[in-house]
Amino acid sequence: MRMDIVTIFPGMCEGVFNSSILKRAQESGLLEAKFTNFRDFAEDKHKKVDDTPFGGGSGMVLKPEPLFRAVESVKRETNIKNRRILLMDPAGKPFTQEKAKELAKYEQLIFICGHYEGFDERVAEFLADEAISIGDYVLTGGELPAMVIADAVARMLPGVLGSAESAPTDSFYKGILGSPVYTKPREYRGMEVPEILLSGDHAKIRDWRRKKALERTKTIRPELLKNVILTDEEKNYLEDL
Amino acid sequence: MRMDIVTIFPGMCEGVFNSSILKRAQESGLLEAKFTNFRDFAEDKHKKVDDTPFGGGSGMVLKPEPLFRAVESVKRETNIKNRRILLMDPAGKPFTQEKAKELAKYEQLIFICGHYEGFDERVAEFLADEAISIGDYVLTGGELPAMVIADAVARMLPGVLGSAESAPTDSFYKGILGSPVYTKPREYRGMEVPEILLSGDHAKIRDWRRKKALERTKTIRPELLKNVILTDEEKNYLEDL
Repeated sequence: MRMDIVTIFPGMCEGVFNSSILKRAQESGLLEAKFTNFRDFAEDKHKKVDDTPFGGGSGMVLKPEPLFRAVESVKRETNIKNRRILLMDPAGKPFTQEKAKELAKYEQLIFICGHYEGFDERVAEFLADEAISIGDYVLTGGELPAMVIADAVARMLPGVLGSAESAPTDSFYKGILGSPVYTKPREYRGMEVPEILLSGDHAKIRDWRRKKALERTKTIRPELLKNVILTDEEKNYLEDL
Repeated sequence: MRMDIVTIFPGMCEGVFNSSILKRAQESGLLEAKFTNFRDFAEDKHKKVDDTPFGGGSGMVLKPEPLFRAVESVKRETNIKNRRILLMDPAGKPFTQEKAKELAKYEQLIFICGHYEGFDERVAEFLADEAISIGDYVLTGGELPAMVIADAVARMLPGVLGSAESAPTDSFYKGILGSPVYTKPREYRGMEVPEILLSGDHAKIRDWRRKKALERTKTIRPELLKNVILTDEEKNYLEDL
């Protein structure tokens, strides 16, 4: 997969793309990442990328021309048809694991990152294929959201993850929170690992993990339970909690 | 505010902390950020930070000792009482703008970032004050979530944001999506700015923006409308859409 990050802060992203999974995906040839500074596509000599909003208001708005021209330059240079242009936008659709799987099917993702300000709405309407938000909080720019999406998507590319990186319990993928996990030492400063995990009884351990995952989900994220299919036993267990 | 990021990938975070708002907050003395590599606190000569999960399963689990020792070292060195220890955890409570405001009141935030694997549950139970998730997607580590939270919190610190960085419409803070914004040029390749924004009629513009924000929220994030107080006129407008 090819990822193009269109940003005025390319230096912000390089550490993330040069570490861990994103680094390894690039080293193994499964991912190619490039940064395009849209300030280079500003038309005036001051390289101005923003201006005041029509209709008044504080703050500055990113102008459409540098973004259109930067993205068009990426499209021209790469010429990949199976691509998706993503706008990092607090007013976009919430990013989810399902969306990560869907985006992993494209050959190219182009991330448009705004900064400080909003961007001219024509970018959302006519340039981007879709607008995505990573959560209901205000960030300074689209770079962190782009990196979050890049990481989640790269993990879905076949061959990127080794077995050691998979989650010990995959229940998050099943729509609820994972169960607690423990490793050595068995006892640390008086804090002990639950007996059952040392029992060697795999059926009981599986049952305990599922129950702990349900319990934790009910406590922290009860709304997630609406979207999963539960056995009668699990339903009873949740009601009894 | 002091932020301590406890991670085995400090290089991943430096670009973000050296750019934009986080950089400026540090330069103006409003924020101090430090990275602590918990691999330095591993007890054996191989600097091992993870081990296999008790009870079986694939994947590796972060051991408790290096994390406890790294965080205790940070606490000892900084000695700040008004602090909060945050665990970056997909099974944590969802991060929101409200949480960002709340965290901005502490003098110190210590971010514990796992990587690849889960972490031993004793870290969540006995070391961290709270576990936070930035969204329902699977990431490789806690570094990106820590940077997201750091950015959102730093923006809330008094004096960090200039007026130019405030959002042109602040409606996201009011619990719904913002209205579209536009800047020059008035017409770009046949794409035009809505007439009303050029009218100079501020009451009408305010009304248009509120309606566009409501319309967009109803289309993209209808669930947000449950949590806001609407006038009768706004309710009627939404019903008529």
